[in-house]
Amino acid sequence: MKIIRTIRILKKEIGRAKNRGLKVGFVPTMGALHQGHLNLMRRAKKENDLVAISVFVNPKQFGPKEDFTRYPRDLNSDAKLARTVGVDIIFAPNDEEMYQTDFDTFVETLNLANKLCGRSRSRHFRGVLTVVMKLFNIVEPDTAYFGQKDYQQAQIVKKMVSDLNMNLRVKVLPTVRERDGLAMSSRNRYLSLAQRMNAYLLYKSLLWAKKNILAGEKNPAKIISGMKNVIKVIPQSRIDYIEIVDPVTLEKKSKLSHCGAAVLLAVHVGKTRLIDNIIICES
Amino acid sequence: MKIIRTIRILKKEIGRAKNRGLKVGFVPTMGALHQGHLNLMRRAKKENDLVAISVFVNPKQFGPKEDFTRYPRDLNSDAKLARTVGVDIIFAPNDEEMYQTDFDTFVETLNLANKLCGRSRSRHFRGVLTVVMKLFNIVEPDTAYFGQKDYQQAQIVKKMVSDLNMNLRVKVLPTVRERDGLAMSSRNRYLSLAQRMNAYLLYKSLLWAKKNILAGEKNPAKIISGMKNVIKVIPQSRIDYIEIVDPVTLEKKSKLSHCGAAVLLAVHVGKTRLIDNIIICES
Repeated sequence: MKIIRTIRILKKEIGRAKNRGLKVGFVPTMGALHQGHLNLMRRAKKENDLVAISVFVNPKQFGPKEDFTRYPRDLNSDAKLARTVGVDIIFAPNDEEMYQTDFDTFVETLNLANKLCGRSRSRHFRGVLTVVMKLFNIVEPDTAYFGQKDYQQAQIVKKMVSDLNMNLRVKVLPTVRERDGLAMSSRNRYLSLAQRMNAYLLYKSLLWAKKNILAGEKNPAKIISGMKNVIKVIPQSRIDYIEIVDPVTLEKKSKLSHCGAAVLLAVHVGKTRLIDNIIICES
Repeated sequence: MKIIRTIRILKKEIGRAKNRGLKVGFVPTMGALHQGHLNLMRRAKKENDLVAISVFVNPKQFGPKEDFTRYPRDLNSDAKLARTVGVDIIFAPNDEEMYQTDFDTFVETLNLANKLCGRSRSRHFRGVLTVVMKLFNIVEPDTAYFGQKDYQQAQIVKKMVSDLNMNLRVKVLPTVRERDGLAMSSRNRYLSLAQRMNAYLLYKSLLWAKKNILAGEKNPAKIISGMKNVIKVIPQSRIDYIEIVDPVTLEKKSKLSHCGAAVLLAVHVGKTRLIDNIIICES
């Protein structure tokens, strides 16, 4: 496994692999790897000849009051984990390598990015798409892998790839969860013991929503209100949003049918903002 | 020479060429080809094994009051001209092929696009970058060719390619001019005879500016004022801007030195908006 710091050397390495006809799988990450990431890498390894991951805490996707500086960074431990699942290349550039001082170009979706997480994190998805575009151009993967936990992000990346005719496939794999159901996230480590003990209720509220929608509940407001009752038990919790939307357009559903909805939530637990989602009748 | 209407078939065709190891040169155009375009294609032919051009009047780069509907379209005549310089593929999609109804993704530069033409054409460069990004991803050229007449556009495209780590080279070739010095442009055909007869004064004002800067004039205001005196003779002319800027950052120069400036102008002549520029001491 190679750890590569510069774009130039990475492109050279990838170019060599491509010239040999190797298929490249790619998992972009911000490090602080957990089983969710590793699951993406395992799948990438299975479906490709070479697996590259990136470990880069992207400054452009954090708001001024967000956790950019305290976001966990530990490349050694990430490298150990990545090695266990057969990753071939870790691309770990520094900020200056990715963004020169006169950096000026951004990629964004307009409609998809203004909803859900985009309302409280206004520049977030612009930062995500910009770095993902850069990474895709640097790594030139055949397939890139994303986790469903960041559902809106995955949809927006898929939209960018489709709208801009990019030459790769994007695969979104199911959320990997802790034993109690809490979605794996690098931010879970911010939680206090009491917060962590109760955070599983987020997923429980989603399961409750799914059960009730499948049982025939048509009214999104009733579902959301029931979820709020489950979530409010979590100490120091404050709901950012709970929404039931079309899984592709992310438009709010006014009436539920048996299938074809995504239930998404973002909840502050203390100073930690957690997100999760469930898809009703995923194909 | 093939005329291709769909992205799918174009990608297949280009893929075949790439698999054979052919180098691809690309000239994006909005059609209404003139000698400026043909000059780009000749250079592309000389430097590559296969030359693709696009002919697509991109709706996203026109403002609501601009000339999108009346912009000249004549694919037959364009195809005849392209054939004379050895173009291999014309990609001529329709609007629906390029922009599905739920199209939502845009590329933009922030600083570079807000200056000069960007001030009066606020969404213009966002539309340009978005379609150029799409075309680059569809054609996957080794080198793309642009004309210096659209100087700001060329700088912005170069910036996008560099900022987003795109895998191609961008070459900018000198403006091709009519005998009297008027920069070739698809919009010159909008001019009345009287307007056309006097439009060469735009270039004359640029030559005058260059001569005086090279002669040692340090004050941009004096140069600009002198240019205005030359331009005001053109009937029905109204200056949008005349600016003397750094050739890369496009920031206004407050003091001129012997070298290292770009003089750019946009002037309405009747209903037609013409642009031109000159670089002082281009390397």
